[in-house]
Amino acid sequence: MPVNLPELDPAQLHAVAGVEIGIASAGVKTAGRKDVTLFRFAPGTRVAGVFTLNRFCAAPVRICQTHLAESGEIRALVINTGNANAGTGVDGFERAKQICFATAEALGVTPAEVLPFSTGVILEPLPFEKIIAALPAAKADLLPSNWAAAAYSIMTTDTAPKAKSVQLEIGGKLVTVTGIAKGAGMIHPNMATMLGYVATDASVSQSLLQDLVKWAADRSFNSITVDGDTSTNDSFILAATGQAGNAEIDDAASAEFSLLRDAVLEVSQYLAKAIIRDGEGATKFMTIKVEGGKTWDECKTVGYAIGKSPLVKTAFFASDPNLGRILCAIGYSGVDALDVDQLEVWLDDVLVAKDGGRHPDYKEEDGQRVLKQSEITITVKLGRGNVEATVWTCDFSYDYVKINADYRS
Amino acid sequence: MPVNLPELDPAQLHAVAGVEIGIASAGVKTAGRKDVTLFRFAPGTRVAGVFTLNRFCAAPVRICQTHLAESGEIRALVINTGNANAGTGVDGFERAKQICFATAEALGVTPAEVLPFSTGVILEPLPFEKIIAALPAAKADLLPSNWAAAAYSIMTTDTAPKAKSVQLEIGGKLVTVTGIAKGAGMIHPNMATMLGYVATDASVSQSLLQDLVKWAADRSFNSITVDGDTSTNDSFILAATGQAGNAEIDDAASAEFSLLRDAVLEVSQYLAKAIIRDGEGATKFMTIKVEGGKTWDECKTVGYAIGKSPLVKTAFFASDPNLGRILCAIGYSGVDALDVDQLEVWLDDVLVAKDGGRHPDYKEEDGQRVLKQSEITITVKLGRGNVEATVWTCDFSYDYVKINADYRS
Repeated sequence: MPVNLPELDPAQLHAVAGVEIGIASAGVKTAGRKDVTLFRFAPGTRVAGVFTLNRFCAAPVRICQTHLAESGEIRALVINTGNANAGTGVDGFERAKQICFATAEALGVTPAEVLPFSTGVILEPLPFEKIIAALPAAKADLLPSNWAAAAYSIMTTDTAPKAKSVQLEIGGKLVTVTGIAKGAGMIHPNMATMLGYVATDASVSQSLLQDLVKWAADRSFNSITVDGDTSTNDSFILAATGQAGNAEIDDAASAEFSLLRDAVLEVSQYLAKAIIRDGEGATKFMTIKVEGGKTWDECKTVGYAIGKSPLVKTAFFASDPNLGRILCAIGYSGVDALDVDQLEVWLDDVLVAKDGGRHPDYKEEDGQRVLKQSEITITVKLGRGNVEATVWTCDFSYDYVKINADYRS
Repeated sequence: MPVNLPELDPAQLHAVAGVEIGIASAGVKTAGRKDVTLFRFAPGTRVAGVFTLNRFCAAPVRICQTHLAESGEIRALVINTGNANAGTGVDGFERAKQICFATAEALGVTPAEVLPFSTGVILEPLPFEKIIAALPAAKADLLPSNWAAAAYSIMTTDTAPKAKSVQLEIGGKLVTVTGIAKGAGMIHPNMATMLGYVATDASVSQSLLQDLVKWAADRSFNSITVDGDTSTNDSFILAATGQAGNAEIDDAASAEFSLLRDAVLEVSQYLAKAIIRDGEGATKFMTIKVEGGKTWDECKTVGYAIGKSPLVKTAFFASDPNLGRILCAIGYSGVDALDVDQLEVWLDDVLVAKDGGRHPDYKEEDGQRVLKQSEITITVKLGRGNVEATVWTCDFSYDYVKINADYRS
């Protein structure tokens, strides 16, 4: 059960003019399951993406990077679950290409205008013929209203779909930003999560779109961790169809870009947090705010040290305010010349540690009260600068072990 | 239950001439438990140590570093379990100093000749009066034969004592090397583990002893991980009493130093591996050999990425050859310009991956056979150099969560 994730209401997901989605069953891993998702973009759509930095990145990730760099335009995304097509060598590369060829033929575009995505088990050959055989059904299903269905069809160990939509006015025009994401384990994105897709009908220049996808990823998918394992397949795609009718946004300093940026960030952060709320075995949702740093990187380093620590995460699972483990994680995070005597550590509104040790007014029952909540904010004040960053994570429960011990069976 | 850790046989632990050990009960955490351990060294003993790099290092660690740097000689170690005296600020520092004063007074040495050590819960005030009150009993118990008793009295979440002794001849004299260690969780040492003590009666120069403690720590305690959490209290101490009667070893290139080095490494590695065999919740002992690297650091980086991955560790717990997770961990380890197409991954004698993907001859049943063992070697051949390193770790089970969710209750 996800932690405080509102149930998906399809009526709240606005279609994005210029985007159609089709779903089909290929039987990649389980017969009958909806496991192929096809996005078709109208001509003129601009697409930008960020991808995993894992050196064992999957074949489809490499193809996405090539197609984005070399194609004038991206017209389709094709996504399968049940198999990651990672750790599959040259053969995996060929299989992903075959899927691009078949998708291009079905839609009347070129193979380089197709981006392929896979998610699931690593090191097993992708049954690409099954996926290709399902493409006609996916094409026949193409509809602007299929966002909710797509949120379901890209799930793997997720227990709930993740989708978010916002509308705003830009330059007198109604603009929609809608996105979906999946992921519950192998979540410690290093560029973006596996997988996030956000589309808008706003008109925005290609270079600002590329800046925006990186900026939003850093503040959403690149700020979460379930288990510290950076996936081979992380991909985050932002598409702008330009059909809202607003004047093209091409100035990073404009009020219009600021509005669009905030809307994309709202959708991206909602989806990233939804992944944590649905983290494997999660029973608690933790926000780790690190303030007073010299750099954003060092704030993230401290946040991730806490958010990745199995000792912190098991203590939070048990609602045990064994808070020395937070200090321990800060201490080994690796921040250069960190003066622990300048630190403050807060649990919600409770000051836990100051001057290098437990605050004299801290009472065990106050820590206990906060830890019993399902939503907890840890605030670390580094006291050495003015920068801050936030990381989101979940606790570590018996069910994490159960889910990952049983994953393939 | 530790994984294949032989039961401690006190008869196999040789006393070290010049070292006496006394045990007592202070009731730091649990009434009646033996929780204070006192080492007394004969005059002329040389002592060297390495300590945690955690910035939140405990008060006793800071005092050890000062005393080692400033004292001509170290004459005593005083160790308590049940409380780490970490995250305790200036007050914790004062309490540790009081223990040094009292120990010095009891033994007729100076406070700077005493090294204090604490292990247990972080962020709680150390009941130093209880420890001081137990010192007379510990002093009365001082005996050369108390190594086995000390191995028990320094335990915390350990389920079994860890001790090892070897004897060898150096320059015609019988030399003994005996050591004990404790640790089961918060184990990812960064200088040394929490806690290891090795003593020898060999005569060796102070500078070689200091080199040796670092060299042995890097190849033993600094090559293990249970949960990736670097403790606030890690300390590894090597003492040489010089009472064996051998001519002082002062040449790093001599055959005598080589013999002593190998003996110290044998004891240190046995103890470090014993910590992993007794890792919290461990059911499997995993050796990760990384060969063909350009540098020792990059081999360790790859080994630790695999050894820390919750996904790898839960798969091994389940005896599930979900080996793509190993490739994933190698991929995100952060080794610069790693070419995954040059890699080989082996499970014992089974070639799993080559040329960037699964080896065509690899069969699931072969992986399954190896994973059902309680001792497993993962070998990664990086194919880019001639350096190798080894990391030892254990799997990740329900019991790890149970132990750490219940630790303080």
